[in-house]
Amino acid sequence: MSFEEKIGLQLRSLIKKTGELELSLAKAAIPEPAADQVVVRVEASPINPSDLGLLLGAADLKTAKFMGTSNAPVVTATVPESAMKAMAGRLDESMPVGNEGAGVVVKAGASDAAQALVGKTVAMIGGGMYAQYRCLKAADCLVLPPGTTPTEGASWFVNPLTSLGMVETMRREGHKALVHTAAASNLGQMLNKICLKDRVSLVNIVRNAQQEDILRRIGAKHVCNSVAPTFMEDLTKALSETGATLAFDAIGGGKLASQILTCMEAAASKTAKVYSRYGSTVHKQVYIYGGLDPRPIELNRAFGMAWGVGGWLLFAFLQKIGAAEAQKLRERVAAELKTTFASHYTQIVSLPQALQLQHIAVYSKRATGEKYLINPNKVG
Amino acid sequence: MSFEEKIGLQLRSLIKKTGELELSLAKAAIPEPAADQVVVRVEASPINPSDLGLLLGAADLKTAKFMGTSNAPVVTATVPESAMKAMAGRLDESMPVGNEGAGVVVKAGASDAAQALVGKTVAMIGGGMYAQYRCLKAADCLVLPPGTTPTEGASWFVNPLTSLGMVETMRREGHKALVHTAAASNLGQMLNKICLKDRVSLVNIVRNAQQEDILRRIGAKHVCNSVAPTFMEDLTKALSETGATLAFDAIGGGKLASQILTCMEAAASKTAKVYSRYGSTVHKQVYIYGGLDPRPIELNRAFGMAWGVGGWLLFAFLQKIGAAEAQKLRERVAAELKTTFASHYTQIVSLPQALQLQHIAVYSKRATGEKYLINPNKVG
Repeated sequence: MSFEEKIGLQLRSLIKKTGELELSLAKAAIPEPAADQVVVRVEASPINPSDLGLLLGAADLKTAKFMGTSNAPVVTATVPESAMKAMAGRLDESMPVGNEGAGVVVKAGASDAAQALVGKTVAMIGGGMYAQYRCLKAADCLVLPPGTTPTEGASWFVNPLTSLGMVETMRREGHKALVHTAAASNLGQMLNKICLKDRVSLVNIVRNAQQEDILRRIGAKHVCNSVAPTFMEDLTKALSETGATLAFDAIGGGKLASQILTCMEAAASKTAKVYSRYGSTVHKQVYIYGGLDPRPIELNRAFGMAWGVGGWLLFAFLQKIGAAEAQKLRERVAAELKTTFASHYTQIVSLPQALQLQHIAVYSKRATGEKYLINPNKVG
Repeated sequence: MSFEEKIGLQLRSLIKKTGELELSLAKAAIPEPAADQVVVRVEASPINPSDLGLLLGAADLKTAKFMGTSNAPVVTATVPESAMKAMAGRLDESMPVGNEGAGVVVKAGASDAAQALVGKTVAMIGGGMYAQYRCLKAADCLVLPPGTTPTEGASWFVNPLTSLGMVETMRREGHKALVHTAAASNLGQMLNKICLKDRVSLVNIVRNAQQEDILRRIGAKHVCNSVAPTFMEDLTKALSETGATLAFDAIGGGKLASQILTCMEAAASKTAKVYSRYGSTVHKQVYIYGGLDPRPIELNRAFGMAWGVGGWLLFAFLQKIGAAEAQKLRERVAAELKTTFASHYTQIVSLPQALQLQHIAVYSKRATGEKYLINPNKVG
């Protein structure tokens, strides 16, 4: 073992009681692994939309300032007074960031399970991955198949299991097809690949023609553009054809969820035989799993009484289905990591680069087609 | 049998393609009952909020005009263009109205089951109760306990089973206490009585001090006034004390559902040990079962990811729990019809009176404390 360092850099996000966000790189001592633990040199960790909430909180990035030096960067920004209440739970606590990642095991505790991982490339989940070294239980590591790089394995968890979780939720809750919004995202493309493979009908909702093209190129059959004047008709037609009564929505705010439910009801009513002022008996569901639009959700209730809107969270879903079922999903991801679940990155940055304002400006936009990977051990 | 009439009056609601609502009294021939049917002389049928949707549709009552004569009244009103889409399913169809009612069986088919009901006072469900005579299956009649009048039995179904259904839904979905809005309504008072009897904690939300008084007088412990400046604090406190994570909302529009979820999350977060930007893991649910406020529902999502909002409909609930379980609830209603499930009426009107503008103006307001009963066989 050539592992001699005692200190590693770790990205930290702090929101102070005074209403200031501060991003910095802390120098953290690398803990000695306990018997059942390993230390992983993190070489790849994606910036997912789900990381940005913790990383940037409710800060107004128009106020962002760069301080410190290029090797010891500090970024500050103001959190609007109105958003501070929602931040109450994390005030004055310096928080590590990064849900998932991959790297190489460089040190291991005394147990056989831990020792067996030495030198292996593993994927990890559990937070604090924007760090040069991460200590965690051997049991929480997924050994990647031979020939898989950390970059290939870095996004093995959040997007793959979220998209698989959507299809699995559809099956468990008795729906037969799916709707997805912001559908040209990395996750959306993954969902299209799963649905094509599993022969599940999927209605993709996007916001512009380029996104439409991205999806058509990978074989998507139903793509509706929400800014088209014919959107409601297009969507109703796609819903009639597919019978989709379950939507996963990454947008969150505004009227889109309401529009989806309205079109589902219109599709369901086409086959109704008797008038009921309560609408169709077909249950229509929208799960909100993201918040690209921070405005309130507006529901006009023009879709009868058989409907639901709710939050959907991967961790809660995995807990609900239980360890054995979750393991099946993980195994599928491992088996199809270079095909169905391949992620593509437009930028690979070091920890100091991740705190440069020009990069923050790009990844904070959550724009389709822009995907960042942090390599905490990249030099530069 | 003294039943000699061949014709009975029946209240009808018609919305024409031209955008006009027309209420009238049709003369309907009384059908000969089939072997398994009976004919009931209806003597009491309440005007519930759930009847008003069918009766008045989306008509603008400011445009209501009275035509015809006092014995053959006709009321017309304009349906706003914007609301006509939602009426599409019922256009140009003259519809009978009245979900539930009670009366005396005056004629019966040949079967033993039907014959056994002759002369009995029965309660009914199934629509078309605003009529002098209603023909239906014997099996769909509930024989009221001896000594029970049609007036006492008229509201045996909608409010009692809805309020029981709320408590039952709470148990089935793993919640331990309830929230109810527009809580001083007839239904809300019933729910208080059930909860006091069953020792279920109930948080009542009302809109003014009189409603607060109504509930305190019948023993309600938690009453929050949504127009009080301290509403959010009051509600959070009541939710902390009761642990209520399920609300039934009759209001529908505006921000109330969002406020309830926000306060539930605040109550849940008080006991949280670790910060999660996804909020607490406690599932918080609001079911919308009415629409007193026709505006859109506005959800600000300041309540984490473990939440749901959806429609709740008595008929769907009864179907879901199945016939045997539904029967248990009905039996409880029959046993407690004069106590827990007693309804109080401020007006008892005949069919022609029900179409007088001054009465429509009152019952269309769905105001707490105003409750109408129609006696289709009342003379006058």
